[in-house]
Amino acid sequence: MDPVAFSSAIALSSVGDGSFVADVHSEYTIGGKPNGGYLLAMMGSAASAVGPHKQVIAASAHYLHSPDPGPVTVEVSVLRAGRSASQSRVRLLQDGRACVEALVTTSLLDPLTQPYWAGGLPDPGTATPDDCVRIPGVNAQGLRVAINDQVDLRIEPDHLGFASGRPSGRGELRGWLSLPHGEPFDPSSLLYAVDAFPPATFDIEMSGWVPTLELTAYVRALPAPGPVRVLQKAHLIDAQRVDESCYVWDSSGRLVAHSTQLAGIRLG
Amino acid sequence: MDPVAFSSAIALSSVGDGSFVADVHSEYTIGGKPNGGYLLAMMGSAASAVGPHKQVIAASAHYLHSPDPGPVTVEVSVLRAGRSASQSRVRLLQDGRACVEALVTTSLLDPLTQPYWAGGLPDPGTATPDDCVRIPGVNAQGLRVAINDQVDLRIEPDHLGFASGRPSGRGELRGWLSLPHGEPFDPSSLLYAVDAFPPATFDIEMSGWVPTLELTAYVRALPAPGPVRVLQKAHLIDAQRVDESCYVWDSSGRLVAHSTQLAGIRLG
Repeated sequence: MDPVAFSSAIALSSVGDGSFVADVHSEYTIGGKPNGGYLLAMMGSAASAVGPHKQVIAASAHYLHSPDPGPVTVEVSVLRAGRSASQSRVRLLQDGRACVEALVTTSLLDPLTQPYWAGGLPDPGTATPDDCVRIPGVNAQGLRVAINDQVDLRIEPDHLGFASGRPSGRGELRGWLSLPHGEPFDPSSLLYAVDAFPPATFDIEMSGWVPTLELTAYVRALPAPGPVRVLQKAHLIDAQRVDESCYVWDSSGRLVAHSTQLAGIRLG
Repeated sequence: MDPVAFSSAIALSSVGDGSFVADVHSEYTIGGKPNGGYLLAMMGSAASAVGPHKQVIAASAHYLHSPDPGPVTVEVSVLRAGRSASQSRVRLLQDGRACVEALVTTSLLDPLTQPYWAGGLPDPGTATPDDCVRIPGVNAQGLRVAINDQVDLRIEPDHLGFASGRPSGRGELRGWLSLPHGEPFDPSSLLYAVDAFPPATFDIEMSGWVPTLELTAYVRALPAPGPVRVLQKAHLIDAQRVDESCYVWDSSGRLVAHSTQLAGIRLG
């Protein structure tokens, strides 16, 4: 089946007053539930459509209840419309039930800027997409990860031990991500990119679902066309919760987005 | 002048329906404006007072307008009251104007848990509070940082180059933090701890005010009594914005809180 364009899967229809209707696509799911970054991309796109600034630079989502594939409502309230940045509250509801609430700051990402100092970033590595292995739409535990038949998500062989029951113990997954049909990334779809990879905890110990409780993403620059390089990294598993950071570089090697998330995990 | 207890400086008076009045204390300020983490601590405390779960585990704030010292209103709306966690929207207003909006997830932090895996954390180092230099209430540029006459904030000498115009270039500040009168930290005051240090960019190049745009903090465990060890680290300066992470360990060496923030900066 031909993949569904990411921009179609987050498409919004305005119903006025900062509200939109949208469809959570059944193929942008993991075990039948939508990816959290995909929902945040939809919400960021709504904030960009309503506020005076058109590019998300910071988005923070708290996940209340996972929606099912199907119709949802997205409601944007502009909290402040500033000169250089604006802030909005965005709610995603299904059948009147709040599923995700997010705060989104939008601004202008100037295509002419260059990084001033990047001394605190991790090493992106040198593996190319061709060096990596594409992750299939069914995972090692037999779970259907439909979204991986839509996007092209590839992991470096050196970080793929989890697929054969031999995680490296480093808590890191590295690889590349492309949207269907090679659609270029933009600030909204980067909100998906920072949550696209499997949990980095798979590189420590296999577990069941690792549901995101909170996800905060920063978009730092407009991405060049082409696939993005991704590093997903776990830091601490404590009290059945794990935090992970994600770094996303564009095809020119520039850091364009990064995130932190807190998730539940059945380990410890 | 005797320092003001942190718990007094964030004290809330309920006015019913999840709303509170509070006073932004004039001594918890930098150049006359309140510290962003101090405001988030006040908001986290409000969320803990209203929702069914009493400990903040995740808080994300977007800063709209810096309030002045004096009366503010804090309004909590419980978005979901779950079995193991609850989510609230918290607004801080002054004279009817929205200053900060935050999303707060609360839960139970079990004092009996132990970290399961901590392989992704930075090295906390070994410096003791006595090895460090207390930061005064006036900074190297002559700016009044009143809050540093309240709390006891100490930086390792090796990271203090900025005070004499010789930053190391690493973008890291390391040291210790105590609340006035040695008050023990709790999940709310940890939301201040993750934003207490000077900008880690001072260790790269001195600049003026580095205003926080977004701050997300996770509280991972109940802190042991005593001071906390802090690492404040910059990652990328690009397009006059910088992201920093902060790690906070309690006196027993356990990672109890960490954060990420995006801030404006006049460099680049």
